This record gives sequence, C-alpha cells and structure tokens, in this order.
Amino acid sequence: MAETTTTKKTIVVFSGEMDKILAAFVIANGAAAMGDDVTMFFTFWGLNVLRVDASAHVAKTPLERAFGWMMPRGADHLRTSHFNLAGAGPHLMGHMMKRHHVDPIHSMIETAREQGIKMIACTMSMDVMGIHREELIDGLEYAGVATYLGEADEANVNLFI
Amino acid sequence: MAETTTTKKTIVVFSGEMDKILAAFVIANGAAAMGDDVTMFFTFWGLNVLRVDASAHVAKTPLERAFGWMMPRGADHLRTSHFNLAGAGPHLMGHMMKRHHVDPIHSMIETAREQGIKMIACTMSMDVMGIHREELIDGLEYAGVATYLGEADEANVNLFI
Amino acid sequence: MAETTTTKKTIVVFSGEMDKILAAFVIANGAAAMGDDVTMFFTFWGLNVLRVDASAHVAKTPLERAFGWMMPRGADHLRTSHFNLAGAGPHLMGHMMKRHHVDPIHSMIETAREQGIKMIACTMSMDVMGIHREELIDGLEYAGVATYLGEADEANVNLFI
Repeated sequence: MAETTTTKKTIVVFSGEMDKILAAFVIANGAAAMGDDVTMFFTFWGLNVLRVDASAHVAKTPLERAFGWMMPRGADHLRTSHFNLAGAGPHLMGHMMKRHHVDPIHSMIETAREQGIKMIACTMSMDVMGIHREELIDGLEYAGVATYLGEADEANVNLFI
Repeated sequence: MAETTTTKKTIVVFSGEMDKILAAFVIANGAAAMGDDVTMFFTFWGLNVLRVDASAHVAKTPLERAFGWMMPRGADHLRTSHFNLAGAGPHLMGHMMKRHHVDPIHSMIETAREQGIKMIACTMSMDVMGIHREELIDGLEYAGVATYLGEADEANVNLFI
Repeated sequence: MAETTTTKKTIVVFSGEMDKILAAFVIANGAAAMGDDVTMFFTFWGLNVLRVDASAHVAKTPLERAFGWMMPRGADHLRTSHFNLAGAGPHLMGHMMKRHHVDPIHSMIETAREQGIKMIACTMSMDVMGIHREELIDGLEYAGVATYLGEADEANVNLFI
C-alpha cells in the first residue's frame, strides 16, 4: 500500500584529502544515524584513509614501495585540499574540529563501523596504487565496480566525493 | 495511477573554485528553469562563494582571522582549479564567459535566488572554517547534514561538486 | 504490475585528471556491460580527454590558442591529480594499469563507444574553454545542461566526477 522507498545511500570515496574525507564520513554517519543503509566504496586516493599507521610487512615492487611512501598513511596523516601548508592546514583544521566538538576522522571511521556502514575497498584501484590488504584496517570488504553498481542500484542517493 | 516522479535536485557545493561553482549554478539554475525544486547545500570551500565582499565586523580568533584572510571573499574573487596563474585564469575565464554570453557567477547567484532555489549554508563547516553568519550574503538558510539528507531523500538527482 | 526500475546511469565528467577519468570510464563501462544505458556528459576539463592528438586546423583567437596549448590533448596526455611529477605519475600509473590488465584510457573510450554509451560534449564549456568541434574525436553529441538534466531525470544513478 505504502510507497516503498529505499533510503540506502552510497558514497564513492575517491578523494583522499582530509576535508573531503570529513564530508564523506559526516554524510555517511549522519545517514546511518537516521536509519539508512550506507555503503562507502573507497577507490584511489580514498584508500589512503584506510591504511594502518604502522608499516606493514608486505613484499612490494620498488614502484609500489615508492607510491606507498608518498601517499598518506591513514586517517591521522591526511592533507587538506587547500592551504595544506606543509601540514599546518590539517593541524589547524583538526584544532577547529576539536574546538567545535567535531569528531576526528579516525573516530568517525570507528562510528561508521559501529553503525554497520559497509566499507568496500576497490580492488582494481588497490592494484593500480600498489596497495595490499595487509596495509588496510580490518573489517573491510573487497570488491570491484560491479559490486558498487549493485549497491548503487539499491540506493536513492549516490555521491562521488 | 500515474507514476509520481519527483524532479527535485540537490547539489552539495563543497568546492570553491570558479569553474566548479560555475558548473554547480548552471545545473541548479537550469533545473529550476525547467520547473524543478532545487536545494544547494554549501559546505567547506563552497561557502566562500557566499561571502560578502566587504570586511564584516565580526569578533574572530586569530586562527579564524587567518583562515578568512586566505580564502576568497565572494563570487568575484574565486580561483580556477587549474591554470589559476595568480588570478589570470579566472580573469580569462570571465572574459570567455562574457564573450559567449554566460552570466558571471554573482549574477547566477541572483538568478538562483529569484528562481527560489534553496541555498543552505552548512553550519558544521562554518564552525570548522571559522566563518560567521555576518560574513555571508542574505537569504540563506542555516542547517546541518540531517537537513541535507532530508532534502536528498526527496530528490531524484543528488550531486556532490 | 511489476515495479519499473530504471537502471540508466549518467556521469558528468568535469575533471580531466587521468585518475578521475579512469574512475569515470570504469564505472560507465561497467554499468554498460551490466546492461544499463549510460550517458557521459563531458564538461570543462573533462573535455580534454576527448581531444584528438593531432593539431586541428581551426581558426582560434590568441586566448583560445593559449588555453588549448596549456590543456592536455587527449586520453594519452592526461595528468594525475596527485603526484603528477612532471609526467612521471601518469607514466607510473599507466605502467601499473598495464601490469594489472587494466585497459589504457584510449581503449576504454573505444569500449564505451562499442557499448553504445552516449557521450555528450557540453557546448557551453566548449565556448568557455575555447574548444572547437574539429578538435574533438568523432561520435560525440553536442548539447547543453537541459539535455543533461533530461538524461539525469531518466536515470537512477547520477554522478559528478
């Protein structure tokens, strides 16, 4: 009788800058808190937020190693998309977040997990970026574009960030 | 009997570069001209396009003052995302827009208002960026992610720019 | 009786960086392979991926010529959004793509065409960027925002990349 309305949300997290990651998790956690199913699909630079801080012991090609060295290692090491200023930007943004009681990004990831948000790491971009599973946090699913599209087909809001 | 189809549109305006802001307003104003309800949700760098040009007399912390000084002040002071070239890029783009009868961005904002587009400033990013209401143009609504999600749930096209 | 569900997808391809273009075509070709109608709407920097490599003989203003000279000329000359490193980034990414059997972008464009993906070049941004039809690859449609919005209204997933 009633209109069946999906309220599922998907977010492709392509960008890895602190400000965009913040936006992605605020939307994702907000939707989950309102009762929506949420799927986050991490690709390319967005994968960096899922990296563990400690150096993982993984056999890598020199090229993969170079890429891995250049890219930020996890939620506490992201850059801002503007005014990064050699790390001052993220520090200042973190300061403003704390002052206004906005959770730091590593806490937002925890909240996302606790709320049952499905976090998928894109296997194709892991290949292209030389990122191995051992380098990423626990609790992720691993899949490709077909899985993303299946999730998006079930959702009513699909964002690319 | 007939399929009820929403044609509402929402756009998260996260980016503040002239070219992305242009794209956002062209889509928003185009949709409104075709009869759609449109909501624009301005967050982070996107807030800069809503800043009034004149210096507002607001009590700010030194950090907020520094952020405010670095960021562009309104629609006529935006940078381009590529080839900004110390301001030459926006100037050239403005020249090309004029030549091809594309409205300047401050006119597009006026058109958006006249067409009844709902423009919401994200209060959480205002906090994080140190932007106060007195610094923004009139006619805005102020709200957070829950309001955005409510709007998006009513829409059939939701973009993140 | 049965719920009629559109599975059409649209992607606004605004960005012109190699990594974002790769994401756009992976999603577009993936959706087409799964039987969806797909429309890609190329605007601003995204138009550069459609440029033909050879210099087209077009009468241009000096300004258009300067813009054209600065912007990448086609799928094989794109930059990466991070770590471009004077061209080393795209080269390394291409190397990793090849190693993991990910098609190069010019092949993905071919696949998109073969799968019947509708590729539209945004005429307003062509004007603003000084790009002429003679400079773009064959098989494109030319249209503006109203056409994009019409396509988006028929789709269930609409991304802005």
